Amino acid sequence: MQTLPGFRDFLPEDCATRNYIFARWREISRRYGFVEWDGPVLEPTELYKKKSGSEIVDQLFNFIDKGDREVSMRPELTPTLARVVAAHERAFKKPLKWFSIGQFFRYEKQQRGRLREHYQLNCDVIGETDFAADIELIALCIDILRSFGLTEQDFVVRISDREFWTDFLQQQELPAERWEEVLQIIDKSGREPREKTEEKLGNLAGPVFSIFDKGGRSGKLDRLVDGLGARGLAGFVDIDVKIVRGLAYYTGTVFEVFDRAGKLRAIAGGGRYDKLIGQLSDGAVSMPALGFAMGDVVLGELLGERAASREKLETAIRNQNRIDIYVVIAKEQRRADALEQIQELRDRGYRVDYPLTAEKVGKQFQNAENAGARIALLYGDEWPQVKIKNLDAREESLIPNDALLDSVAKFFTVSGSV
Amino acid sequence: MQTLPGFRDFLPEDCATRNYIFARWREISRRYGFVEWDGPVLEPTELYKKKSGSEIVDQLFNFIDKGDREVSMRPELTPTLARVVAAHERAFKKPLKWFSIGQFFRYEKQQRGRLREHYQLNCDVIGETDFAADIELIALCIDILRSFGLTEQDFVVRISDREFWTDFLQQQELPAERWEEVLQIIDKSGREPREKTEEKLGNLAGPVFSIFDKGGRSGKLDRLVDGLGARGLAGFVDIDVKIVRGLAYYTGTVFEVFDRAGKLRAIAGGGRYDKLIGQLSDGAVSMPALGFAMGDVVLGELLGERAASREKLETAIRNQNRIDIYVVIAKEQRRADALEQIQELRDRGYRVDYPLTAEKVGKQFQNAENAGARIALLYGDEWPQVKIKNLDAREESLIPNDALLDSVAKFFTVSGSV
Repeated sequence: MQTLPGFRDFLPEDCATRNYIFARWREISRRYGFVEWDGPVLEPTELYKKKSGSEIVDQLFNFIDKGDREVSMRPELTPTLARVVAAHERAFKKPLKWFSIGQFFRYEKQQRGRLREHYQLNCDVIGETDFAADIELIALCIDILRSFGLTEQDFVVRISDREFWTDFLQQQELPAERWEEVLQIIDKSGREPREKTEEKLGNLAGPVFSIFDKGGRSGKLDRLVDGLGARGLAGFVDIDVKIVRGLAYYTGTVFEVFDRAGKLRAIAGGGRYDKLIGQLSDGAVSMPALGFAMGDVVLGELLGERAASREKLETAIRNQNRIDIYVVIAKEQRRADALEQIQELRDRGYRVDYPLTAEKVGKQFQNAENAGARIALLYGDEWPQVKIKNLDAREESLIPNDALLDSVAKFFTVSGSV
Repeated sequence: MQTLPGFRDFLPEDCATRNYIFARWREISRRYGFVEWDGPVLEPTELYKKKSGSEIVDQLFNFIDKGDREVSMRPELTPTLARVVAAHERAFKKPLKWFSIGQFFRYEKQQRGRLREHYQLNCDVIGETDFAADIELIALCIDILRSFGLTEQDFVVRISDREFWTDFLQQQELPAERWEEVLQIIDKSGREPREKTEEKLGNLAGPVFSIFDKGGRSGKLDRLVDGLGARGLAGFVDIDVKIVRGLAYYTGTVFEVFDRAGKLRAIAGGGRYDKLIGQLSDGAVSMPALGFAMGDVVLGELLGERAASREKLETAIRNQNRIDIYVVIAKEQRRADALEQIQELRDRGYRVDYPLTAEKVGKQFQNAENAGARIALLYGDEWPQVKIKNLDAREESLIPNDALLDSVAKFFTVSGSV
């Protein structure tokens, strides 16, 4: 028996990596005043059709449940967000700054960086039209990646603005019903031969390529870069008007994050979607909104590739799964005494392990090393004294068992762990 | 549009409750030297049929995926554990002490304390036959519940032993192929009229009821209680031989945790299943094992009911979603200066919020209170000094902006937060 294709087991080291990524996502989102929420993993299929049309169903893990409901394992969070915001927004002060960490599912061809499940951070600001929210959101995205030890040499946020193009198309007197089609051509242009894009664009090819070649700018995009510059983050962003993002619902700022080397799929992406909540809630609640999503798979690849981020990751894995104290039971007669103190030590918050059955002392010290213990406590002939051994410094001393808790506390205070 | 029946949205307060429960589960499991792992949410249906027979399918969210595979959203973790252990056990020292936190799904009638999804902690010890592992596992289960502020007045672990009954049935000369049937009758006896159980038991009714009435004991169960007693945990357990647990795969110690008041469903349950890994891996790997599972729904109800645990929960919710510092921008000319310092404060790990657009100063101080900020920093006419206001003590002082980071650090060191 194996996992289904595109699904992962998380062995302890993989799970520690996942926990580390989640912890950074959570920590930095909170530094920005975002609060966490979540929705169900299973939702009515209708919720996704409503946002993305019935084509989406081809990519879903969808089925009919035992109550005859059409249901789907969630492919994304935004439709759930719209539902929850429409139902509960009155209970919260605006703007809402919400983040969520969860698993998402798509039945797709597997490729590097794309499985059939992945974890995603979603950060959204709801109820704020001001451009300051766009800057704040992009700054958050950058600071999350910085917190993993990634620098401006490692990743870049490519920012663009759908309004830049809709203003341009208006100038070109293209009827509004054709805008989305042209935006999709621009979105694909980076992945297609120039001639093909040229052919598709027809009359517009000349002016569009002229913008591509000059690298289009706008006052709004300059203000975005300036706003990030005021926070010392300008080095992380490039204006790139070729980015429009495939999804039709974006209305303003859009951005995508890539590794600088350009070897991997997008690390994150997002933008402003001021009309979507209104559409999804059938007009019940209309609120401006913007957000981004960042997945764990491509990010995990990048973290492993760069020396600084890999080192932080490895330290995090080690610290998550290490114990503080290993109790060596050198004489079985001392097991009951040891267990009593193990209970006290655990009650004080230390991670303590010991051999469940009699083992040679040498083997027990090996267990201690394998588990990453900082100190070993030895219960044997010295009782009622306990031998305490600093496993890093290789120093040992004897202490009376009733002074043990204090000695251990002193050790961990000084050496700054736990 | 609504959630599917039996599925939950997690608004910020619900999500904080969930995070708090997960954090305690994770923290105490690690104190016991357990390491975290996880499996996929979607698995081949066959994996569950193999363990539980095809009746299980009636309770599953199962379907045929777009690759014609019979798949199910996981109803439990043990079959995945058996698969993963059989594939990877050689890479790990025995015994494995593994825990996992994840979501599980069953298509069942909804009742109080039972939805169609829930989160569950699974803790398992694999590769240890010694009874010390049974004691360690039950101690872990108790200490997890204690960490929520629950006491021996709030919950009880009812422990029993399948061997107690199989020894008895052997004595009674009942053929082994009928044992499981009798165990199921005993399992149901607490939920049925005595006459019905009596009828089902036939000849065995006399001796079985005599055991029920005397409260059966065994040397093994006494040793279990003694082992917990040595750790000061005897008050949390009762021997109750009526507990056999419905699942046929248990081979030794079994236990279930209930609220003392007896108002709720089981909080947790588990036991020894020495043959299951061998069965599920078709004999590829045969290893003794034991474990328990604890769900979030009944536990959440109990935490809310008891004063001590409710208070801890409420504090945890408050601390998760509060910020440290609110920046009041009293003059818009100071916004850029404020933003520069906000970036520095966040980089140092503080949770900082501020108004995205111009707001009245009074309104901003209200935002600060609502967000649970400990201090407010005011950027206005006093610049290049910043006014720092302790929101608990209602004290304020002026500091030069270049000394701000130090002052803030001092405040949080002294008041012991962050």
